[in-house]
Amino acid sequence: INGARLIMVATPANAHGDIAEQLAPFLKDDQIIMLNPGRTLGTHYFYNLLEKNGLKANVIVAEADTLIYTCRLVKNGLCRVFSLKKELHVAAHNPDDTQMVCELLSEFYDVIVPAESVLETGLSNLGVIFHPVPVILNIARIEEQSTFSHYKQGISPTVATFLEKIDNERIAIANALGVKVDTAVKWLNRIYRTEGDTLYEALQNNVAYTEVLAPTTIHTRYIYEDIQTGLVPLSILSKELGIENSAMDCVIRLASMLYNYDFYLNGRNEGIIDFQKIINSRKVAISR
Amino acid sequence: INGARLIMVATPANAHGDIAEQLAPFLKDDQIIMLNPGRTLGTHYFYNLLEKNGLKANVIVAEADTLIYTCRLVKNGLCRVFSLKKELHVAAHNPDDTQMVCELLSEFYDVIVPAESVLETGLSNLGVIFHPVPVILNIARIEEQSTFSHYKQGISPTVATFLEKIDNERIAIANALGVKVDTAVKWLNRIYRTEGDTLYEALQNNVAYTEVLAPTTIHTRYIYEDIQTGLVPLSILSKELGIENSAMDCVIRLASMLYNYDFYLNGRNEGIIDFQKIINSRKVAISR
Repeated sequence: INGARLIMVATPANAHGDIAEQLAPFLKDDQIIMLNPGRTLGTHYFYNLLEKNGLKANVIVAEADTLIYTCRLVKNGLCRVFSLKKELHVAAHNPDDTQMVCELLSEFYDVIVPAESVLETGLSNLGVIFHPVPVILNIARIEEQSTFSHYKQGISPTVATFLEKIDNERIAIANALGVKVDTAVKWLNRIYRTEGDTLYEALQNNVAYTEVLAPTTIHTRYIYEDIQTGLVPLSILSKELGIENSAMDCVIRLASMLYNYDFYLNGRNEGIIDFQKIINSRKVAISR
Repeated sequence: INGARLIMVATPANAHGDIAEQLAPFLKDDQIIMLNPGRTLGTHYFYNLLEKNGLKANVIVAEADTLIYTCRLVKNGLCRVFSLKKELHVAAHNPDDTQMVCELLSEFYDVIVPAESVLETGLSNLGVIFHPVPVILNIARIEEQSTFSHYKQGISPTVATFLEKIDNERIAIANALGVKVDTAVKWLNRIYRTEGDTLYEALQNNVAYTEVLAPTTIHTRYIYEDIQTGLVPLSILSKELGIENSAMDCVIRLASMLYNYDFYLNGRNEGIIDFQKIINSRKVAISR
């Protein structure tokens, strides 16, 4: 990384901890670390871990709201890119740096859109809604090695209604923090031009999801990434804000019991992120 | 019911409330009401509802640990009996009445075994372990109208391990109350002569379960009966006893969100049953 201006971190977000730990001693002033994507509170988490691991340099950490490519690994070392996203929303940890980071990225990609803050990118984390719960509510079927469409068969009307509950908790957090985000249904309507007023209808009408199969193992990033880097920080935010978080909280607890793994303890929790400070600085920003 | 000595109540236990309400005004002294089965704390619940609904007579309420027949409704008015259980454990609400009730029942069935108390029959409620969680963790598949074996396919290794957590909570309650009950695995080994040290092995090895299909709708007694009359009272007992009840509690919460129905409020809860009195009287009995 010596001499690199821009360091692109394009891993599932649950690897960010290891990467920050290994990067910290080698970073130089003015290097930009770009998380693709940051998931929820990614730059906060990454910065804190850099500092815990001996960061001396003055670096910029930024994040995107999603991975720019829709792609899958074909085999080790070979990745198939299906498409490039139509928009990539990007924010630097310090909003003053966002413009500069976006200009730099725009040299390589023509879909970069500056986001207001990392709360905007982080609260637009839809993996949290679409990934972990359908795995959990189809866990026997996945373990049986059944082949089925994650979105069309895995998300039945009852599952979709429950996902809407989780989505409502996410939207309530965004509202409380004065951050504009789309509901999952509106996001589908906007990005995929799907029709439908309910999440179930929108998902069933989304042709792009037809062939997206469910994970072939229960040990998948749909669980480890999306719970630790999405549901956990969102659940803590909602608790700190005094917002109902029964659905998110229940999923974290159930997953921890099913997987015999403490997602909360291993997630982006209060031990690593100062949630109250984030909330307070946002209140100051809103009141300005 | 005029002139009846013995009134057999053989419905899913979530109908006990309605039945008690309708029976109460018509009961005569010395009539025996037999719950087949009582599920958990059935006689307590039934007695209290009889009294709330104007019971004047001096009646005996008793319960069995399971339904004596293994049977299914073929169509309205026609029931197919597959087999008679090898043992039916029976307890009267007041243990002093148990012998008399068992003698009366033995005139009709030769499999009656007196139980020590209604805690023994009620804490042997295995529907709580085997029924609701596999429905919930296969809810998309059930809603999609897939046909699969409830026990062999619906209970994958991860599901079985989670069921063992719930079972451990049930066993801990029984231990705290000085009531001897089998673990689910030992029960399978005893009743069905299945081999296997884990619940998953025991279930996979149980030939009798091969053709038991999963419910064809998510609105099934496996949910409404077993959560309201089993998981809810067990969860409250564990809480009152200071026993870990994360697994039971999590299932009740998740089910309530998935079904948009408050299982706790509609279940056998503190509003209807005096849990502390049951625990205290048991402590007195143990210390004798």
